[in-house]
Amino acid sequence: MKAPMLAQIQGKLVVSCQALEDEPLHSPFIMSRMALAAMEGGAAAIRANSLIDVQQIMQTVDLPIIAIIKRDYPSSDVYITATLREVDELMVANPAMIALDATLHTRPGDLQLPALVAEIRQRYPQLLLMADIATVEEARKAAELGFDCVGTTLYGYTAETQGCYLAADDCRFLRDVLAAVTVPVIAEGNVETPEMAAHCLALGAHAVVVGGAITRPQQITRRFVNAIS
Amino acid sequence: MKAPMLAQIQGKLVVSCQALEDEPLHSPFIMSRMALAAMEGGAAAIRANSLIDVQQIMQTVDLPIIAIIKRDYPSSDVYITATLREVDELMVANPAMIALDATLHTRPGDLQLPALVAEIRQRYPQLLLMADIATVEEARKAAELGFDCVGTTLYGYTAETQGCYLAADDCRFLRDVLAAVTVPVIAEGNVETPEMAAHCLALGAHAVVVGGAITRPQQITRRFVNAIS
Repeated sequence: MKAPMLAQIQGKLVVSCQALEDEPLHSPFIMSRMALAAMEGGAAAIRANSLIDVQQIMQTVDLPIIAIIKRDYPSSDVYITATLREVDELMVANPAMIALDATLHTRPGDLQLPALVAEIRQRYPQLLLMADIATVEEARKAAELGFDCVGTTLYGYTAETQGCYLAADDCRFLRDVLAAVTVPVIAEGNVETPEMAAHCLALGAHAVVVGGAITRPQQITRRFVNAIS
Repeated sequence: MKAPMLAQIQGKLVVSCQALEDEPLHSPFIMSRMALAAMEGGAAAIRANSLIDVQQIMQTVDLPIIAIIKRDYPSSDVYITATLREVDELMVANPAMIALDATLHTRPGDLQLPALVAEIRQRYPQLLLMADIATVEEARKAAELGFDCVGTTLYGYTAETQGCYLAADDCRFLRDVLAAVTVPVIAEGNVETPEMAAHCLALGAHAVVVGGAITRPQQITRRFVNAIS
């Protein structure tokens, strides 16, 4: 029952439609139209943040969703679907897949990652789980925990990987993760150009997630402005 | 009194924020947030279509606007600010600049381009006028008519230039226009990458307008999808 979505996105583009509170496009309405634009452009799935965005997007497009909730906890630097509370919240919309931080960083509260995964599996046996990781060790542990896929999402976004970029050294990190695990690996994080997206797939990524380069016009504008100044 | 806006955009990026009725982002609210994103990213001005979009954008960002109204007339293939009616309509918002089709194509009604320009100058002496052209001859005639600047906007979008691309032959068309007129030349139309934008300015363009590559996510998505399939 789970296989279809992973098969659906194989070799394809997933578009991440996110605008946080401090961003100009912050609005469930706008994100739902962004998702529609992505679908028109040929996206195979949408990654989205927050229950309301996921709900509006699911009402607007007929594509599978990778859902997350970004929420800061004072006691932890884990912020992507950090606890069971966020999973329960997202399951109101019943997305095909939920992604969560699967780094080795301390989570809020007492629940450790293995117990969290076990609890999610028990509550929602049909749900696909994506592990957002930043190191090869985290990818390996996530695969051992039974995540359905791992994503390079957090590479460059954790304290120990700060300053790292997915594109560096011919996508070395992506290649290392691909060599370390047998579950599908999804390339995500700073995929800035069509060429880089194609290259990630050629290296063996199961799918590629592109966010800001498509759905953050402020970021795209900045890239043009930097080139001309 | 007119100079400031042209000086403001010199060597800079103008972001075109347009979504027509059949596009997923069609909405004055969304376009106003797009304009805000462009401003955050460092855009020097906004090009926008329709009075309502121009008004909402002017309420949202403090940037000069190049305003147009795209409206189809059954008797003519001129559709960018084709008649005095569209100019009067846009002047409700009082934008710094209005762009209009300045091709040699037959306009709707009886008014010829020279008479239209003369009438606009009389009614709105402070308004800057941009000539959207598709051929060198049209650029030359527009400059003679006293347009404040010419834009390569329609190159590739008229019957006789179909299939032409601004980037072709090291931006040959842009270079030809630059050689033919002394008014500022604005590079616009299929400027797809930061590198191409920088190149247009290096060749001597006064400013560069980027639209779809920043504000049409369906088009950007398509570019990624094409690269990976």
